[in-house]
Amino acid sequence: MLDLTVKKRALSPSGNLIRGRFSAGRLPEVEAFTASLPFDRRLFRHDIRGSLAHARMLRQVGLLSRKEAAQIERGLTQIEAEIASGQFQFVLSDEDIHLAIERRLTALIGTAGAKLHTARSRNDQVALDLRLYLAEEIETLLRRLTTLNHALIGVAEEHLHTIMPGYTHLQRAQPVTLAHHVAAYVEMFERDHERFAQALNRTRVMPLGAGALAATTLPIDRRLTARELNLTRLTANSIDAVSDRDFALDFLSAAAVCAIHLSRMSEDLILWSTSEFGFVELPDEFSTGSSMMPQKKNPDLLELFRGKTGRLVGDLTALMVTLKGLPLAYNSDLQEDKERVFDALDTLHPLLDLMAKLWPRLRFDRAAMLRAAGGAALATDIAEHLVHRGWPFRKAHEAVGALVREALQAGKAIEELSPEDLRRHCGADAEGLTGLLSAATSVARRGVVGGPAPDTVKRRLRQLKRR
Amino acid sequence: MLDLTVKKRALSPSGNLIRGRFSAGRLPEVEAFTASLPFDRRLFRHDIRGSLAHARMLRQVGLLSRKEAAQIERGLTQIEAEIASGQFQFVLSDEDIHLAIERRLTALIGTAGAKLHTARSRNDQVALDLRLYLAEEIETLLRRLTTLNHALIGVAEEHLHTIMPGYTHLQRAQPVTLAHHVAAYVEMFERDHERFAQALNRTRVMPLGAGALAATTLPIDRRLTARELNLTRLTANSIDAVSDRDFALDFLSAAAVCAIHLSRMSEDLILWSTSEFGFVELPDEFSTGSSMMPQKKNPDLLELFRGKTGRLVGDLTALMVTLKGLPLAYNSDLQEDKERVFDALDTLHPLLDLMAKLWPRLRFDRAAMLRAAGGAALATDIAEHLVHRGWPFRKAHEAVGALVREALQAGKAIEELSPEDLRRHCGADAEGLTGLLSAATSVARRGVVGGPAPDTVKRRLRQLKRR
Amino acid sequence: MLDLTVKKRALSPSGNLIRGRFSAGRLPEVEAFTASLPFDRRLFRHDIRGSLAHARMLRQVGLLSRKEAAQIERGLTQIEAEIASGQFQFVLSDEDIHLAIERRLTALIGTAGAKLHTARSRNDQVALDLRLYLAEEIETLLRRLTTLNHALIGVAEEHLHTIMPGYTHLQRAQPVTLAHHVAAYVEMFERDHERFAQALNRTRVMPLGAGALAATTLPIDRRLTARELNLTRLTANSIDAVSDRDFALDFLSAAAVCAIHLSRMSEDLILWSTSEFGFVELPDEFSTGSSMMPQKKNPDLLELFRGKTGRLVGDLTALMVTLKGLPLAYNSDLQEDKERVFDALDTLHPLLDLMAKLWPRLRFDRAAMLRAAGGAALATDIAEHLVHRGWPFRKAHEAVGALVREALQAGKAIEELSPEDLRRHCGADAEGLTGLLSAATSVARRGVVGGPAPDTVKRRLRQLKRR
Amino acid sequence: MLDLTVKKRALSPSGNLIRGRFSAGRLPEVEAFTASLPFDRRLFRHDIRGSLAHARMLRQVGLLSRKEAAQIERGLTQIEAEIASGQFQFVLSDEDIHLAIERRLTALIGTAGAKLHTARSRNDQVALDLRLYLAEEIETLLRRLTTLNHALIGVAEEHLHTIMPGYTHLQRAQPVTLAHHVAAYVEMFERDHERFAQALNRTRVMPLGAGALAATTLPIDRRLTARELNLTRLTANSIDAVSDRDFALDFLSAAAVCAIHLSRMSEDLILWSTSEFGFVELPDEFSTGSSMMPQKKNPDLLELFRGKTGRLVGDLTALMVTLKGLPLAYNSDLQEDKERVFDALDTLHPLLDLMAKLWPRLRFDRAAMLRAAGGAALATDIAEHLVHRGWPFRKAHEAVGALVREALQAGKAIEELSPEDLRRHCGADAEGLTGLLSAATSVARRGVVGGPAPDTVKRRLRQLKRR
Repeated sequence: MLDLTVKKRALSPSGNLIRGRFSAGRLPEVEAFTASLPFDRRLFRHDIRGSLAHARMLRQVGLLSRKEAAQIERGLTQIEAEIASGQFQFVLSDEDIHLAIERRLTALIGTAGAKLHTARSRNDQVALDLRLYLAEEIETLLRRLTTLNHALIGVAEEHLHTIMPGYTHLQRAQPVTLAHHVAAYVEMFERDHERFAQALNRTRVMPLGAGALAATTLPIDRRLTARELNLTRLTANSIDAVSDRDFALDFLSAAAVCAIHLSRMSEDLILWSTSEFGFVELPDEFSTGSSMMPQKKNPDLLELFRGKTGRLVGDLTALMVTLKGLPLAYNSDLQEDKERVFDALDTLHPLLDLMAKLWPRLRFDRAAMLRAAGGAALATDIAEHLVHRGWPFRKAHEAVGALVREALQAGKAIEELSPEDLRRHCGADAEGLTGLLSAATSVARRGVVGGPAPDTVKRRLRQLKRR
Repeated sequence: MLDLTVKKRALSPSGNLIRGRFSAGRLPEVEAFTASLPFDRRLFRHDIRGSLAHARMLRQVGLLSRKEAAQIERGLTQIEAEIASGQFQFVLSDEDIHLAIERRLTALIGTAGAKLHTARSRNDQVALDLRLYLAEEIETLLRRLTTLNHALIGVAEEHLHTIMPGYTHLQRAQPVTLAHHVAAYVEMFERDHERFAQALNRTRVMPLGAGALAATTLPIDRRLTARELNLTRLTANSIDAVSDRDFALDFLSAAAVCAIHLSRMSEDLILWSTSEFGFVELPDEFSTGSSMMPQKKNPDLLELFRGKTGRLVGDLTALMVTLKGLPLAYNSDLQEDKERVFDALDTLHPLLDLMAKLWPRLRFDRAAMLRAAGGAALATDIAEHLVHRGWPFRKAHEAVGALVREALQAGKAIEELSPEDLRRHCGADAEGLTGLLSAATSVARRGVVGGPAPDTVKRRLRQLKRR
Repeated sequence: MLDLTVKKRALSPSGNLIRGRFSAGRLPEVEAFTASLPFDRRLFRHDIRGSLAHARMLRQVGLLSRKEAAQIERGLTQIEAEIASGQFQFVLSDEDIHLAIERRLTALIGTAGAKLHTARSRNDQVALDLRLYLAEEIETLLRRLTTLNHALIGVAEEHLHTIMPGYTHLQRAQPVTLAHHVAAYVEMFERDHERFAQALNRTRVMPLGAGALAATTLPIDRRLTARELNLTRLTANSIDAVSDRDFALDFLSAAAVCAIHLSRMSEDLILWSTSEFGFVELPDEFSTGSSMMPQKKNPDLLELFRGKTGRLVGDLTALMVTLKGLPLAYNSDLQEDKERVFDALDTLHPLLDLMAKLWPRLRFDRAAMLRAAGGAALATDIAEHLVHRGWPFRKAHEAVGALVREALQAGKAIEELSPEDLRRHCGADAEGLTGLLSAATSVARRGVVGGPAPDTVKRRLRQLKRR
Repeated sequence: MLDLTVKKRALSPSGNLIRGRFSAGRLPEVEAFTASLPFDRRLFRHDIRGSLAHARMLRQVGLLSRKEAAQIERGLTQIEAEIASGQFQFVLSDEDIHLAIERRLTALIGTAGAKLHTARSRNDQVALDLRLYLAEEIETLLRRLTTLNHALIGVAEEHLHTIMPGYTHLQRAQPVTLAHHVAAYVEMFERDHERFAQALNRTRVMPLGAGALAATTLPIDRRLTARELNLTRLTANSIDAVSDRDFALDFLSAAAVCAIHLSRMSEDLILWSTSEFGFVELPDEFSTGSSMMPQKKNPDLLELFRGKTGRLVGDLTALMVTLKGLPLAYNSDLQEDKERVFDALDTLHPLLDLMAKLWPRLRFDRAAMLRAAGGAALATDIAEHLVHRGWPFRKAHEAVGALVREALQAGKAIEELSPEDLRRHCGADAEGLTGLLSAATSVARRGVVGGPAPDTVKRRLRQLKRR
């Protein structure tokens, strides 16, 4: 009679569970190199959550007895506590978090532990773990985006009437308000929210039951597992289930785009906080000094925000390169997915958090912004006034171009042009112009949907807040 | 009295419309370098479609007379015909397709033409053009994806019972069917479809009315324009409207992911068509010879499919790099968006088209595939049989590991093991095993959701076909 | 007796030369997709140059008769003229420039033409063509870099005494000169020069003779071929010779780094030409207007320079992705190398050319730059003065920090601090300080190697000019 | 009288050294986010080495007294020991390794410690640290490349006569030897060696003395510092010195190219170790089992090698993105350089080390390789034989194409063709052919430079070994 019992603690701590057919052990440096344990231990809670769901399903279909399932549940709960408290002894020969936990489980509860991996492979298991983990993280990111947008909306609401120059080509173009500029960011992060939500949706799919790539002959019930995990969709093809990392790419793409938005915002703030622009002062709590120049107050934080776009684009590129050209189904190259995802998460969380904290503490210099918003930035208003009076736009554009050139040569701002100056270029249609030549009037008159007029912006902010 | 008439043909062909304030012309090499006309002329239909909608709106709000609007409509229709037929004279000094068309329009109809650009900037105009163009192209890509998936489903349906080895780590793992393998691709392209559809949705938003970045003081009605263009959503912030290229990134991300799928599929086919695998023969119509080696039949097409992943990842990276760190709002760096989008489209269209044509013409060698699917690939079936009999999975895994090692040493396939061999490792539970040791049985027994059993795959294919 | 003559014009224009073993022709769309002719025809001169060298070698080793060699030489010369003049009829079924030329050659001269491909494969032929082409282009780039550096040195020499603020974190840090700032770019391009020269060196290696991947049994002499091509090194392994694209990666890396330098330079100029900085005015010949805002003068050119970094990084990424994971030896994926290389070249040539033309025409506002260079930027000078007097640097740093804070609160520039102010923070060591507090003095005193003092910079510029 | 003494331990452990002008402390989360200490502490030895050199120079020019220099030297030596042994207390508020060490130094030795940062900024200091660190690491990589190449040469020497098929398009093309194939890799790594050596050369340049960006007014001697550090070149422009990260890009480019080589090699080995190819067996010490399929022996290690190309390309992309568009001079974005460099180093070291260990343990199946090398792979030999007999190559190519097609249809290998078969296609020139139709003969006859003939390969290996 064969002895089928697996002794508790029967395996030495470094006894690898899956090398049945091998006559020689791996080189220690190979073990070190191939082990994902140093980084995938971060998945321990999700690995255990997945195993609990799997065990409950196995019991319901009769592959585990009630007693075995209870033992497993108890064992896994204990292991989670051990890891959380730092007591768990990780050994590199376990390769990964899955085997580490399973080894410990078998040491704790014996035979029942050795049954946990029934109808499961590490290929579907790791897909589940990463999906559960990432889904949770994306949910947090979604909340952070909302927080950031609330902070921005708050700032915008305070600055509905704070005039500033709008820039194109980094040249002053037309007056807008700070509220309108800030609201532009809110729109960007709204799109990021949608993008992350869609990535989340493709992440929340249950792969367990795909086995190594070919499912199983055992009578499992994948819907039960999914229900235990509060997931509603199952992967529909076992080969795809273990080789698909689209959900990681979806997340990394969304993260890179979001980083680009944060980088553009940072660039704006870095510019505004220069002596030359002088629009904003960074709070001391967010700035750094210089080791050499005592007078410096540096926007390090924003520069890092901008610089970190690199690593997020790099993370995306990296995983794309890794996936390119891989045959189906599972290949170990896929192990590279996790560190890219973790790095992107670790980068994005504080970026969003700190940006939300920074904005309410920025002190804007309304006077400096207003000063910069006048002058040539009003040229378009003149042209549009002429159009109102029936001029063809191109003709008006040309006339105002000449007027601006003349003003530049005379060293005058547009507001300073005399009625005669205006009349020389605009004829009788110069009438009524002078009253229009202020930045505040200019802004107030652009109330079309999407425009900078305070009322328009206010209405949009209210809509955005309701989301 | 100022003369506001714009003479027909008043501008010399190279007279640039917007250099009112400049005293000197650009250097020819600067003109050549900055001109986007060589590539953005591809947008001419969409530029004209946008201008028609804009003109109709201008008429409805009273900024154009009925007559002017009619002239513009007639002029633009003629210009579209001129460009389509190759008669249109492009000159580099026009900078871009927008000015080229406007210049011609003014030459054709005079003053009314000079009114078209009322309440519009090239910044919102180009955003509209690219959105309209890309939306149309994505719609075509969606159709191509559907066609490809139909072709794949067709192949899968023919091969529900064609046994082949499933691979992990490119090692034979367990038997599956060709249908199941092909169905894995269908799942991938289903996700691509969803991804492109979401990108399309974020593309179909109407930016016109944002002007240069600050909307307009003129009484336009953006909803009318949108309705004319059959669009339902308006951009909600004028600064964002002209600086946002997320929709291009969304498309490029989706394209890169899709390319990675095509690349993985190509890699499979390249492997299968080697002498070593021998699973498939490429049709002559899809293969190339060698200039030196007369016997060669090369899968060039598939290699190009695989190789072109590089340019699609490169296109995405390129635009991300370009956008990174740009301050708001419009900057000319954004001009780099179009060529990346065009390149990705030009690459992806034939990839999808040819893949759909290739699959139905592949000739599979069922015997070779079946041969490769036996042997050690059945080891998991033995282990699962033992689990059925109550063995802990780890114990079963270990026993079968030993059995495999013994078989390898004896040079036997698993199917060739004698009942005694099996009994030595599995004890009494070896009973009934021999009947299970065939690839076809193995596959048939894996009927769990997502598994390779013919009935399961058939059901899934039917679902997929209905989409 | 077999007839070995190849009739002139025996092949129909579309008769492909290498499909001996195929029973069916390729689909037209496959032909169109796999053909590299639309882009590799750009290599025609180098293909012909390589064929001439190959033919001369074949004659010298006796594989061609003198007469055949003469015929080939004449034929190829004619073909080069035909292509150069646009008379040559390209047909897509030729696949690539190699077969196009060979087909035409055989049509022109018959049997001898059919002997040209002796001991050669398209695999080694295309490697040669691309190497010859790229080498020539890199040589031009090296010259352009030299021209650019000469232009920059010229500007620097004019501005040895033009004071401006040096920035760190985009905050004014310490005064430097424009010459010193410009000289920093010269150093960057010096490194680019070295990098391109090293890439060139790895490009100028002769692969012909490697055949398809396994050399040849025919008695060729590769050194003769190399000598004909004025190359001194031979590839040393035939498998490597046809699968290696490192030289293309070397070039693309160097190009991307160079683009990053140009992008940083463009960013500086874009900032300096804002109203806020006001350090420089772009010449009209290098600027663009706005279609909506008549007053605008936009640095489009510089924005495009900056934006095009994206495509150069993208080109590099693309080829890396393509090469990743390819088995040896030649695979058609490699065909993707050419368009990335061409795109990088087409982008880089005008960037370097225009940058060299732009700099001498920039008009700097010396007064504005000087104004910006005073104030807090002199804080380090005070601290270093104290160190001269024996203060520990940290102590000095701290004291000056306090002094700066006080000055800021009092709204004073550092130059405006009274001797009492200084003495309160620096004690007796304040003596002599006032004389130091000017930007010009500050710069002049920093004459250490690599420093901004006019004499130091002048000396360095002279060294750089001598290269 | 001002008290200039800096008390030992005067600063609380968290007292930041450089916030003299700030009234409020940073938020803890800002501190955590901006601190580079968690990763730059890795540079501690190089930071201390640089400080020692700096202090010796300061003493020689009289800015430190002999006693102060001795104190500093003693203090730094102690700190190095403290860090190496893990006793050093790092606190996040120190921001980076530079301030951490300086704080501790001042705590240990008081006033003299506060003098160390004289004429130095963290901007030039970190540039030095990273250069010193990277230079040392590249030197190690160069040694590892040499070791790998020695291992490969050893394998090649054993297999000079081991026949195998050479592949193009992954189709068997012509027979080569394993030695020749392996020697192709040696050529690749030779180029990597050159590339890394050039990167090293651009890294070994001394930036200290550049200060924050504008050098210093203090009478330092940069050449002395360089001599202390055993460096021979000085950075020549202080602005460039602090903003340049080309050396990091040079390294990352070289690393990515090297990774691509390792990835191609891994792909070959993964293919060769499939059941289908069956050319090589991986040693147990380098392989992994399956958690589900007991029979599996997976080439995980090689898949990871291949997969890790992604992160190396990603690291390069990341830093390029970060650097793009940055204005001069130092910006905190540059802080992102270190982690990319470290990640690339951490990835590349074990890749090279393990590859060198793996090759000598691979067991090749000579019989399987030889079997695969016959058949159609000999077609080119027939064609070249005909060319020897005076046939135009294209004619010969065509004739052999027909012959191959016939053989395929008849199910014969080329070696099995009868003299009549050969004569039917080749006429009288079939004479002597039969003797040539063996893979070994085929290889032996390709002795041209770079060819696979054993003697040729042997000669080349000898050359390579001498380097």
